[in-house]
Amino acid sequence: MVNKPAPDATRRSEKSRRAIYEAALSLVGEVGYPRTTVEGIAARAGVGKQTIYRWWSSKADVLLEAFLDLAEQAAQAAGHEPYSLPDTGDLAADLKAVLRATVDELLDPRFEAPSRALAAEGLVNEQLGREFVTKLLEPQLQLYVHRLRAAQDTGAVRRDVDPRIALELFVSPLAQRWLQRTGPISYDYTDTLVEYALHGLAPR
Amino acid sequence: MVNKPAPDATRRSEKSRRAIYEAALSLVGEVGYPRTTVEGIAARAGVGKQTIYRWWSSKADVLLEAFLDLAEQAAQAAGHEPYSLPDTGDLAADLKAVLRATVDELLDPRFEAPSRALAAEGLVNEQLGREFVTKLLEPQLQLYVHRLRAAQDTGAVRRDVDPRIALELFVSPLAQRWLQRTGPISYDYTDTLVEYALHGLAPR
Repeated sequence: MVNKPAPDATRRSEKSRRAIYEAALSLVGEVGYPRTTVEGIAARAGVGKQTIYRWWSSKADVLLEAFLDLAEQAAQAAGHEPYSLPDTGDLAADLKAVLRATVDELLDPRFEAPSRALAAEGLVNEQLGREFVTKLLEPQLQLYVHRLRAAQDTGAVRRDVDPRIALELFVSPLAQRWLQRTGPISYDYTDTLVEYALHGLAPR
Repeated sequence: MVNKPAPDATRRSEKSRRAIYEAALSLVGEVGYPRTTVEGIAARAGVGKQTIYRWWSSKADVLLEAFLDLAEQAAQAAGHEPYSLPDTGDLAADLKAVLRATVDELLDPRFEAPSRALAAEGLVNEQLGREFVTKLLEPQLQLYVHRLRAAQDTGAVRRDVDPRIALELFVSPLAQRWLQRTGPISYDYTDTLVEYALHGLAPR
């Protein structure tokens, strides 16, 4: 998807690339996905349309990479690697820390509007929705799968639990409150989700 | 919001009302919320625009009532009252039954397209989103709150659990899979959610 630039063009390209990401995210947050165009992104980023088409084939491609970049920055700001969850041996503490960082990200205005615009489009545009789930959301969910598998190895999670479903007990409630505004989100809230998910609602 | 019709107009009104609901739901599913108009709903329902404005003040109002009516029909089709959850004394069985009925509803084509269109709009149109949550979604979630409170009274759920958060452990995963297409939905899936939520992921 991305052609490697010639060495002497790298610095300038990197700057353009970042300007294009920022333009794409701000534009989709302001006017929504259907009215975001490659021309509009180019104009806002101060580059030619051809610069965008040299690197990406469509606005969906630009946005996908812009979100991947944003998620990477958010993970680094939260002090953890973008491609794994912390494993201190204390599953509850690790999940709470990651979900608290997610709360921060969801409440970040740079993230809010573009993410809503994209999620809204993904609900009704099945192809776009599936592409973003496959390339952006599911890889993030798989980090929880790996952390829960490690917890199964140490006995902190039952062996008969399917990690891919289990993670939804704390990830999906936060996602729904944020997406549909069904309730406030806070550290207390996500901490509670982790406690309920690990220990269940029934008496022990 | 709805003026009571004169007695001799009741039968005709009821027929028009249902035609308007159906027109509103099918239209929003086909063209999305922004392009749905009161004029378009009237034309499809075969009534005058003034007939709609006599009963409702906006397209949002028409759609809200159309969805309330659809939810009522779905509850009756599933064999339970629309305004309460079953209470057989077996919490897991009751929750599984209600979630299985919800799976049926989510997979019903009459429900699918209009619900997606409305949810998508609610993500980016905060006023509409909040109105539909307050009037449509939250009352449904409160049915789970009441059922979980009854379970606290019989000792099936711990006293220190907040039922409004607890219900999200099984409701939100299903909502997210359906909304964002993050995974398949089935009776097995929702049964598993109930088991995990009640008994937790950690060894007992």
